[in-house]
Amino acid sequence: MAGELEPPAFEDVLQARQRLEGRAVLTPLLESALMNEAAGCRLLVKAENLQKTGSFKYRGAYNNIAAMTPRPAEVVAYSSGNHAQGVAAAAAALGVRATIVMPEDAPKTKLANTRAYGAEVVVYDRYTESREETAAEIARERQAPIVPPYDHPLTIAGQGSIGLEIVEQCDALSVRPDAVLVCCGGGGLISGVGIGLGADWETVPLYAVEPEEFDDTRRSLESGHRETNRPEARSICDALLSPSPGALTFAINRRRLTGGMTVSDEQALGAMALAFHHLNIVAEPGGAVAMAAAMDPSNGLAGKTVVAVCTGGNVDPPMFRRALDLLQE
Amino acid sequence: MAGELEPPAFEDVLQARQRLEGRAVLTPLLESALMNEAAGCRLLVKAENLQKTGSFKYRGAYNNIAAMTPRPAEVVAYSSGNHAQGVAAAAAALGVRATIVMPEDAPKTKLANTRAYGAEVVVYDRYTESREETAAEIARERQAPIVPPYDHPLTIAGQGSIGLEIVEQCDALSVRPDAVLVCCGGGGLISGVGIGLGADWETVPLYAVEPEEFDDTRRSLESGHRETNRPEARSICDALLSPSPGALTFAINRRRLTGGMTVSDEQALGAMALAFHHLNIVAEPGGAVAMAAAMDPSNGLAGKTVVAVCTGGNVDPPMFRRALDLLQE
Repeated sequence: MAGELEPPAFEDVLQARQRLEGRAVLTPLLESALMNEAAGCRLLVKAENLQKTGSFKYRGAYNNIAAMTPRPAEVVAYSSGNHAQGVAAAAAALGVRATIVMPEDAPKTKLANTRAYGAEVVVYDRYTESREETAAEIARERQAPIVPPYDHPLTIAGQGSIGLEIVEQCDALSVRPDAVLVCCGGGGLISGVGIGLGADWETVPLYAVEPEEFDDTRRSLESGHRETNRPEARSICDALLSPSPGALTFAINRRRLTGGMTVSDEQALGAMALAFHHLNIVAEPGGAVAMAAAMDPSNGLAGKTVVAVCTGGNVDPPMFRRALDLLQE
Repeated sequence: MAGELEPPAFEDVLQARQRLEGRAVLTPLLESALMNEAAGCRLLVKAENLQKTGSFKYRGAYNNIAAMTPRPAEVVAYSSGNHAQGVAAAAAALGVRATIVMPEDAPKTKLANTRAYGAEVVVYDRYTESREETAAEIARERQAPIVPPYDHPLTIAGQGSIGLEIVEQCDALSVRPDAVLVCCGGGGLISGVGIGLGADWETVPLYAVEPEEFDDTRRSLESGHRETNRPEARSICDALLSPSPGALTFAINRRRLTGGMTVSDEQALGAMALAFHHLNIVAEPGGAVAMAAAMDPSNGLAGKTVVAVCTGGNVDPPMFRRALDLLQE
């Protein structure tokens, strides 16, 4: 089904931004001299963890629901957590009810917040049940449309508004970065950012960053077709555990992306610690992988100017403590 | 000496903003539906902990040094930590050397960062030595001007640029708040904010928030003259331990402020925890007191719309863990 959808155009991203104007936070592009020193490069962090609901997902969810005509009474979504919160809050802002299918082992913060935004939460077992099928069944029963987490033009265009902002914020600093790094689960964010960066930046290298055992996009870019992760793969980056690239997102990404980089759980925690220490922001593991990749000397970015999107900050205290433990005291 | 200085005018704040344009971060005004629910009011948080060097102090320091003619080769400052970092980084940005007098028990993060920005740090004992005298002696020896932490028109005007931004950011949301809450040590920030809010907002209530045992400004507003805190007073809010209001800042504050509120250490930690949980930002204890006061039912702000300035985020991990411990898991 998704394969039949057309990729959004640059104009669709501009339209998404219009819909989001005054509704989503124009998140800052943060920089710290001490963070740069620790990272070994000039690191400009697009702090999308400061977005409403604590992640970039609010943008795509809002753009998707706001574009539905007629406006539905209810929507359904499936998500490991950040899309869940984004849909719950965007639906509430638009006066629409939401039912969200979530894995039972999602971070407690994400489960509790999704309910607190007013959504009904239905849990499933991440390792034995299909979230897509569960959600599709509920959607059929209730005759409610699904808000797709990544593989849809309106979702992609909403996330793409981040690309527009990155270009404008870099222009204000008279900076053209050597690379833009964006984390990648299903690929909705990075495909949107690639479109949003626009024609003037089409030669700026754009890299997908993934957890080590979830490098499906990196491998897919190399092989030229959509690769799948092993079912037994595990990572603390709960926001990035998609099994394979989306059909639509991969069709966009294979044309625009320069390549993929991978990050270990320890590297993600290390980047969370430095973001706490030098930028005063709370990043979740999946939200920190782009910063982590920028700092990894093996990625060849030492001394370069790098934009890294920090995509979310919805992390439970025990996980955050693990990051704090890495700081010398 | 400070008593002879004239308060800055609104135009001086506009000039400060011009100097800071592209140099300081235009920090976002953050809001979270779940934070509002926890706080019991609509809470708009001016996230100045995302400012360069992790606190608002960069603004006043930069404005002060940038206005010095001729540009000195070196400047001197005394500070418990945030002004130290602000002066160190602002001096470095302007090509000026900096020597900073700091208490030996300042948070390690603040001592280390001040050195990392390139400043020379001279430590003193907070409870037996005078930081003003130590700094004055060094300034005389080196013939270097002192960058005053609060009691100077240029410092006040620099911090006042936050007031301009608050008005513009609230206008964009079509909001006129019921109160603006700003933490208060020497009073440089809140006096500047009072001027920066401008004539259109002169009837918007503006409150100074202080740690319980450091409520010199609250008591001074009541008595009409500058009160002093007890030498044995203690608080975890290391950024707010000034002994008494400044002469110039109090002259401004007694005309503009509505009153003072106080916050316990536990309340400050609670606000840090909620800011972590719902806003994904790192606040230090002193930076969290305005948020804490907004949430305290005894301050009569339930159901109101409140702007709280989160002034800094330079906190050592052990203190941050104390805040995390307050969250249910």
